[in-house]
Amino acid sequence: MKPKIAISIGDLNGVGVEIALRSHEAIKKLCEPIYCINQPMLKQASKLLHITPPADFTLHETKGEFTIQPGVVDASSGLYAYNSFMDAISLCETKQVDAVVTMPIHKEAWMQAGLKYKGHTDLLRQHFNKEAIMMLGSPQMFVALFSEHIPLKEVASHITQQKLTTFLLDLHKSIGEHRVAVLGLNPHAGDNGVLGDEEREIEAAINEVNNTLGQELFVGPVVPDIVFTPAFRKNFNYFVAMYHDQGLAPLKALYFDESINISLNLPLIRTSVDHGTAFDIAYKNQANNLSYLNAVKAALIFLEIPLEPLANSNSHR
Amino acid sequence: MKPKIAISIGDLNGVGVEIALRSHEAIKKLCEPIYCINQPMLKQASKLLHITPPADFTLHETKGEFTIQPGVVDASSGLYAYNSFMDAISLCETKQVDAVVTMPIHKEAWMQAGLKYKGHTDLLRQHFNKEAIMMLGSPQMFVALFSEHIPLKEVASHITQQKLTTFLLDLHKSIGEHRVAVLGLNPHAGDNGVLGDEEREIEAAINEVNNTLGQELFVGPVVPDIVFTPAFRKNFNYFVAMYHDQGLAPLKALYFDESINISLNLPLIRTSVDHGTAFDIAYKNQANNLSYLNAVKAALIFLEIPLEPLANSNSHR
Repeated sequence: MKPKIAISIGDLNGVGVEIALRSHEAIKKLCEPIYCINQPMLKQASKLLHITPPADFTLHETKGEFTIQPGVVDASSGLYAYNSFMDAISLCETKQVDAVVTMPIHKEAWMQAGLKYKGHTDLLRQHFNKEAIMMLGSPQMFVALFSEHIPLKEVASHITQQKLTTFLLDLHKSIGEHRVAVLGLNPHAGDNGVLGDEEREIEAAINEVNNTLGQELFVGPVVPDIVFTPAFRKNFNYFVAMYHDQGLAPLKALYFDESINISLNLPLIRTSVDHGTAFDIAYKNQANNLSYLNAVKAALIFLEIPLEPLANSNSHR
Repeated sequence: MKPKIAISIGDLNGVGVEIALRSHEAIKKLCEPIYCINQPMLKQASKLLHITPPADFTLHETKGEFTIQPGVVDASSGLYAYNSFMDAISLCETKQVDAVVTMPIHKEAWMQAGLKYKGHTDLLRQHFNKEAIMMLGSPQMFVALFSEHIPLKEVASHITQQKLTTFLLDLHKSIGEHRVAVLGLNPHAGDNGVLGDEEREIEAAINEVNNTLGQELFVGPVVPDIVFTPAFRKNFNYFVAMYHDQGLAPLKALYFDESINISLNLPLIRTSVDHGTAFDIAYKNQANNLSYLNAVKAALIFLEIPLEPLANSNSHR
């Protein structure tokens, strides 16, 4: 039997529902999708898109009704996106589906709706009280972020052996027996301390984790501007970046259209497209669905890796 | 008449001389190369490489003699590389050549030879007492570095409107009327100050420079992990990165083999290969010469842009 996947529909003023409708034929070959949107809202969106919903487009009827305004930041649309996501999580928690794939929400619309979360990952952290790991990538190259949405000047002080050790062990549990390249922080990975010394903490964490695991799965600290060259990428599919742009700028330079976002270290599998609501092209039938197709495929891959039971959550950071 | 270019031969224990010999036929179609190496050293290298030097391989006989040891860090080889580079500069200063192209030196060999420079660019800064701008790239994408070899945690404090304004005006003089994308410092370029506020200084500098120039040539601060995506790169060939890895990691991910290094804002044109001495493959006839060919081509392009007279140097940072 195919795995069941709940699709949270994202901000209905954006491109999510269009991508879901147009990709259904491809997606249903991979899994049984259940779309978290009700009949009236789907009807409204389909009409605007001039698309007839497929007969086997299975819905979970997320409550709420409002007038779709393509490309507009709107509290009602923000709230509906939130409810769709919460329904998807709930379907997963009650074992009615195996994983969640999310379409993009609009952060400002969430703010207007009075929702305080910075995004999906932040909500998942609070909901499960667990340190979700944000990993982005394409099948060729996954980058897990050790730090995320913080000012650049604060990054260095976050890097301690203890925190990084926990992070790498959590990551290992989530991705299984893959080799992982761990980036240094400084130019030339510090050049033996001449250009910064945070690499000592990174090296200590790598050694501690490899010792704990009894195998050399983590490699580094590697030189940040060399690690993404073609020759190096041949040997690694998994990378840990110390900060947001260190990992995401090279990733998006190489694989922007096909890249996806995965939340790891949680009691459920959640993957997402790695693009926004694309309000500028909403309801114009121009959106690219490559990231969505990859998000569904990635969910299926990560479903193969056993999740930790939720009860363990307090033993984590 | 073709422009004359002095080639400093780099560390003779590395791949530079092999690349020079093997590329001569291609290079002489573009310019008149003058290789800064003496007859005995060339003979020694050619013998090790089993290559007969072309008859028209014009030399400037840089003094010195030692035994080449492929792949070995050695003070004599470091000193010879230094002398070759100084001869190339001198040929340019005395107008015997139009530009300098450099093969890689080995920093540790320079240290062993008692030379205190961090590399070519550092030496050029001291020699000309001018703030050379380091720009790296390929014909499709050039990245100028606002800060270079400093620890990541020190980057933020370097970003001031005044320093960046000077940098951007110097860059403009060196590259001519190109549009330039200037990167923000923080994730999402600070997200309106939520993730850092250095973007205010960057924006103020951009506005000041555009006002001074009377045209909107500088654009930004742009989002660091979006600016190198294919869609954005269509619109820009020139970028300013706030720090080393912000620019070089995406550049090398995309264009590692063909990338070059250019020193701007100096009274001479100097370009360089963007790889090291590659001691592991020295004298094995395995080196890739794409970066060298591009370095020569870039020197010819930048020769078309008028240099500032040296007398002005004190008006700069």
